[in-house]
Amino acid sequence: MSQQKFKFVLMALLFCLFQLAKAGSDEGMYPVSEIGKLNLAEKGLELTAKQIFDSESVCFVDGICRVNGCTGSFVSPSGLIITNHHCAYRAIQSVSTTENDYLADGFQAKNLSEEIPAPGYTVRVTESFEDVSKLVLSVVTEGLSFSERTAVIDRRTKEIEKRAEENHPGMRAEVAEMFAGKTYVLFLYTYIKDVRLVFAPPSSIGNFGGDVDNWEWPRHTGDFSFMRAYVAPDGSSAEYSAENVPYRPKRHIQVAMEGANEGEFVMILGYPGRTARHKTASFLSFERDFRLPNVVENYGRQMATMTAASDKDRSVALKLLSRMRSLANVEKRSRGQLKGLKRASIVQKRKITENELQAYIDQDPARKFKYGDVLPSINSVYQNLVKDAQSNANFTQVRSACQMARIAFTIFDAANEKEKPDLERESAYMDRNMDQTRQRLFLAQKDLDIETDKLMLKNAVSELNKTSDLIGPLEDRDIDALYSNSNLHDSEFLESCFDMTIEQLNQSSDSFLVWMRSLYPKYLELREQAKRTEGELSKLYGDLVTIKQEFQDINFIPDANATLRLTYGTVRGYSPEDAVYCSPATTLSGVVAKTTGETPFVTPKRVLDLHAEKTFGKYAHPKLNDIPVAILYDTDTTGGNSGSPVLNGKGELVGVNFDRAFEATINDFAWNTNYSRSIGVDIRYVLWVTDTVYGAGHLIEEMGLSPNK
Amino acid sequence: MSQQKFKFVLMALLFCLFQLAKAGSDEGMYPVSEIGKLNLAEKGLELTAKQIFDSESVCFVDGICRVNGCTGSFVSPSGLIITNHHCAYRAIQSVSTTENDYLADGFQAKNLSEEIPAPGYTVRVTESFEDVSKLVLSVVTEGLSFSERTAVIDRRTKEIEKRAEENHPGMRAEVAEMFAGKTYVLFLYTYIKDVRLVFAPPSSIGNFGGDVDNWEWPRHTGDFSFMRAYVAPDGSSAEYSAENVPYRPKRHIQVAMEGANEGEFVMILGYPGRTARHKTASFLSFERDFRLPNVVENYGRQMATMTAASDKDRSVALKLLSRMRSLANVEKRSRGQLKGLKRASIVQKRKITENELQAYIDQDPARKFKYGDVLPSINSVYQNLVKDAQSNANFTQVRSACQMARIAFTIFDAANEKEKPDLERESAYMDRNMDQTRQRLFLAQKDLDIETDKLMLKNAVSELNKTSDLIGPLEDRDIDALYSNSNLHDSEFLESCFDMTIEQLNQSSDSFLVWMRSLYPKYLELREQAKRTEGELSKLYGDLVTIKQEFQDINFIPDANATLRLTYGTVRGYSPEDAVYCSPATTLSGVVAKTTGETPFVTPKRVLDLHAEKTFGKYAHPKLNDIPVAILYDTDTTGGNSGSPVLNGKGELVGVNFDRAFEATINDFAWNTNYSRSIGVDIRYVLWVTDTVYGAGHLIEEMGLSPNK
Repeated sequence: MSQQKFKFVLMALLFCLFQLAKAGSDEGMYPVSEIGKLNLAEKGLELTAKQIFDSESVCFVDGICRVNGCTGSFVSPSGLIITNHHCAYRAIQSVSTTENDYLADGFQAKNLSEEIPAPGYTVRVTESFEDVSKLVLSVVTEGLSFSERTAVIDRRTKEIEKRAEENHPGMRAEVAEMFAGKTYVLFLYTYIKDVRLVFAPPSSIGNFGGDVDNWEWPRHTGDFSFMRAYVAPDGSSAEYSAENVPYRPKRHIQVAMEGANEGEFVMILGYPGRTARHKTASFLSFERDFRLPNVVENYGRQMATMTAASDKDRSVALKLLSRMRSLANVEKRSRGQLKGLKRASIVQKRKITENELQAYIDQDPARKFKYGDVLPSINSVYQNLVKDAQSNANFTQVRSACQMARIAFTIFDAANEKEKPDLERESAYMDRNMDQTRQRLFLAQKDLDIETDKLMLKNAVSELNKTSDLIGPLEDRDIDALYSNSNLHDSEFLESCFDMTIEQLNQSSDSFLVWMRSLYPKYLELREQAKRTEGELSKLYGDLVTIKQEFQDINFIPDANATLRLTYGTVRGYSPEDAVYCSPATTLSGVVAKTTGETPFVTPKRVLDLHAEKTFGKYAHPKLNDIPVAILYDTDTTGGNSGSPVLNGKGELVGVNFDRAFEATINDFAWNTNYSRSIGVDIRYVLWVTDTVYGAGHLIEEMGLSPNK
Repeated sequence: MSQQKFKFVLMALLFCLFQLAKAGSDEGMYPVSEIGKLNLAEKGLELTAKQIFDSESVCFVDGICRVNGCTGSFVSPSGLIITNHHCAYRAIQSVSTTENDYLADGFQAKNLSEEIPAPGYTVRVTESFEDVSKLVLSVVTEGLSFSERTAVIDRRTKEIEKRAEENHPGMRAEVAEMFAGKTYVLFLYTYIKDVRLVFAPPSSIGNFGGDVDNWEWPRHTGDFSFMRAYVAPDGSSAEYSAENVPYRPKRHIQVAMEGANEGEFVMILGYPGRTARHKTASFLSFERDFRLPNVVENYGRQMATMTAASDKDRSVALKLLSRMRSLANVEKRSRGQLKGLKRASIVQKRKITENELQAYIDQDPARKFKYGDVLPSINSVYQNLVKDAQSNANFTQVRSACQMARIAFTIFDAANEKEKPDLERESAYMDRNMDQTRQRLFLAQKDLDIETDKLMLKNAVSELNKTSDLIGPLEDRDIDALYSNSNLHDSEFLESCFDMTIEQLNQSSDSFLVWMRSLYPKYLELREQAKRTEGELSKLYGDLVTIKQEFQDINFIPDANATLRLTYGTVRGYSPEDAVYCSPATTLSGVVAKTTGETPFVTPKRVLDLHAEKTFGKYAHPKLNDIPVAILYDTDTTGGNSGSPVLNGKGELVGVNFDRAFEATINDFAWNTNYSRSIGVDIRYVLWVTDTVYGAGHLIEEMGLSPNK
């Protein structure tokens, strides 16, 4: 380290110490209903809870949206959305060809007419929420079996959603389970179905570091992209049409060109997916001893097959990349979680807490009568799960690894569900969702690569046959025959299949459909079994939370469930291990230093040249004379927070959240102030890449800033 | 990071800044002849150059020894040596069985009689050195071919060595080439042939972190062991005998129980193996583009085969572990070097320097006449090398990967060389080295695992057949037959073969010898070719150093060549990359935090218990209340410095050097103050493990310290 750099680190550390004394962070992905209870003004926020969310009038949350499984922010009055590159990845892949390889080269629409529809993408904005727990649980009566319990709750939530959508035409209604088996909230969303791609840097920027750097800090990835929401000319939600016009959000988020630096307050609003903070030690053991190692092994195998195929042929890669990236993402996260579960003795700590809770329960006879069996029952559920876990996972893998199998399963599902009344169907096959399910099916078919798919099926079958004789000997040549005697890869044929009844499917001679016919009963059986387990756990976890809350005498925050949450904290480094300290900001010089010229560490020549010339314009860090690239902060996030705005105390956008540090993969199970850190791309890198590197000054202007000339 | 830890880091940084201003380090593995020119008193050393080395009287260097390819320190008057666990690894493996698994469980001799002979180990102590360049180069005359040049230099150095050993009976003489083709120094060594194992911690301590942590900082490995040198009762060097007595070194190194902390001066004496700081950009390109990737690929393949076999059967593992570890070590170092060569643009920088040098040469007609072709000629040597590099490497791999092939080759070599006069033989087959060569052969045979060896040969042959038709089609069943029709795995048969003449070998019907007969001419041809290249490069590099020294007007330090060197620096952290700072000391708490219970991150229960109880005795860091485990410093080291004493300003032992940081693997090609860092085990961890954990207080006493009671 040069002496100058040394001094900088020192100053940064000193500054951080002062800030730590002032600021601070907590575990917590707070539902909007809870924001009022937080004293955020003291932490550095200049907005009131009512300014953040107000179902009666325009509020800050109107500027935040959910983009498929990610989050985005409206950053202009004309529906311009900023989110992650990896959130738009599926869209970029969809519209890429070997001639127009937007994944490799990036994409830029010079004007509205050049923006490309992103098939399968939707955007939603939270408009209101309402506690409907009583309404939901009123259908639960004594003596219901666990499956029946799941079924009546499921049906009731669907009724509530249906009624809400009837009362609010064009809106989307979703009932979210907040505490399992205990509290339910109805959310109403503005729902936009025409989403277009506006700007994406090349993957060499947007995915710099690839799987090597994924889930790691320090990070040097420009993981951002711009999309735009479109609606019908009358402002109503509509499928893609050339007549559609940009959506005008009720408000948008102002971009703060100065970014965020170490020690500053930050806040994140978004749609975190799933956490398991309230689950038991037995659940964690199941994750550690079975599910996570299984994911690592299976996904590793699937990735190896797809990587080999992709390396040979870019046109094949352009079909597989998005799936590969998802698998790689989950595989590495699972490795991180496994490492965390093994190292941090989280399981043991949770067991100790549970023993204390059990002792408290057993103290009082009435309590013991009511709750005494809760923990032992939960534990025995997981013990039972282990027994068939491997063979069930292998069976499920046939569907998930092989696209032809997935297509065939979906066709059977559709036919099977359509025979039921709408409210009793699996959610994906209800009338309100059928179009989207159909669209996803065709997207899967579009990205089908027969040769790779065959290999995936061969591997999956070989794994399945190790633990079950369900399929029986299926030689490689039998699998080859399955493919050559099926037309499911033909979109017209697929179209006709999707509308068939079970009876018609049973008469089909298409080899894949014939084969699926033999597997489908087993699949239905597993689904029923899963629902029974879900029903049992939902009841038990409801009781567990009740008694735990009584014991600990505090208010829990519900686990993440893909509904709107707020989390806050500080831009702050951390010590991932003994003798290592990571500071919370990276630079463009770091990008250059990491560049080897080999994927995933390639950097566009223009970026290298501009760095060498120090052409940073107004986006440079004033003291470093360098472009800040990524920042680290101790907010509480999980998957689904990808693309979330990182906001300063004024509610201005200073970054785009996209990942967590490796140690923080364990966040999903337990949050810790020492190592729970999230990662965002610094807005200064976003603006520099968009404006200085790729000359999209019109987007800078649209965000209300003035570009470099 | 807790606030307290934060403050500690801060204080440490502050302290480091002050120290940096005071101390400092330089590139340089200084030969003892150069120590007088360094102003080490200013840096913090309290010894004079003459105290460090003096061929006339007892000096500091009498306490330092070479242990095979490693370094060690005498730490008692009775020949007790401290070196690395990995330096003693081969010995520990040799004496381990599945019943007495000293690799797994550690080893402790309670007294002299329990110390176990370490077969194949020798110890040497540098006694004197003398520049013999003129004497060597006087045999080089105009008009010699490159092979002839190599041959005459080789013969002359052997003559010098022979004469020196005649004049100093019992001593070992070695002429070392300091600057290729330019300077030669005769070293005289005390040479000890009876070395025994005294104490080794279990691999879970001595190799904690295994290949995962190897070449990495932060480090938590207790990489130390104790051995002892023995001599005949009259003090003369002797092969192992029960009558032998402990060697009494002329002096020994005092252990300083207080260890070394951040910012303090450290010095290392040792026998660094090979560096290539004076080689050309074309050499670096050859390394980057061919040799290093080749090593990574080949070694990776070999390791995979051996790992699979070892995982199944511990008795097989106990034959292969040492070889596997060596391969893993070089494989990972090569990956680090590759990464460094790609990232740091070292090649490009060296090219620029060479262009400047060439311009300087071309300025002056006389200079141009004499040196104008040096650089272009060196470049063309490497260009030529590339052509057959792959097939030659594949051929060599047959010998290195397959132990039966190695044994057969050695038998042919021995017979072939014995036909020549002693001074003309390959060094390993000269009378003075023949015993050792024979012993190594039998050690290789002892660790032969036929089934694994077959697989290794099959793989090597399959690789060779991709690039050459030398061997011709050799099916797996042919290879199986080779093994079943050979008796080379039988030690009596091997004994008889080693004494055969070429004629006798040519008549043997042993299948492996028959097969080797067909390969041997090609092997001799490659060896001749290598010598020709060596001769050419030696001449050219000699000229290059001369003109470079004139151009840069400074005195170079010769590349490392396994002779005694001194290097000095400071205990000091570093920034391996943007946003990461590593402090230079790890702790026992770090060991516990890294422990997962899965190899290589297992920690003995007793260590975990003592840590939990904080039973640190007198070995704890006074402020941390923890045991310091490893330290980092910016000295200039390479392989061969393993086991070197890390000394404080008083010349006391504060640690045992064992590795470098990953970025510093590139050290062998270029040293850099920002990232060249070496790693040592802190003496406090050594003493705590030896005394408190394993109760070997008698060793603590032997080192002149008082153990904890």
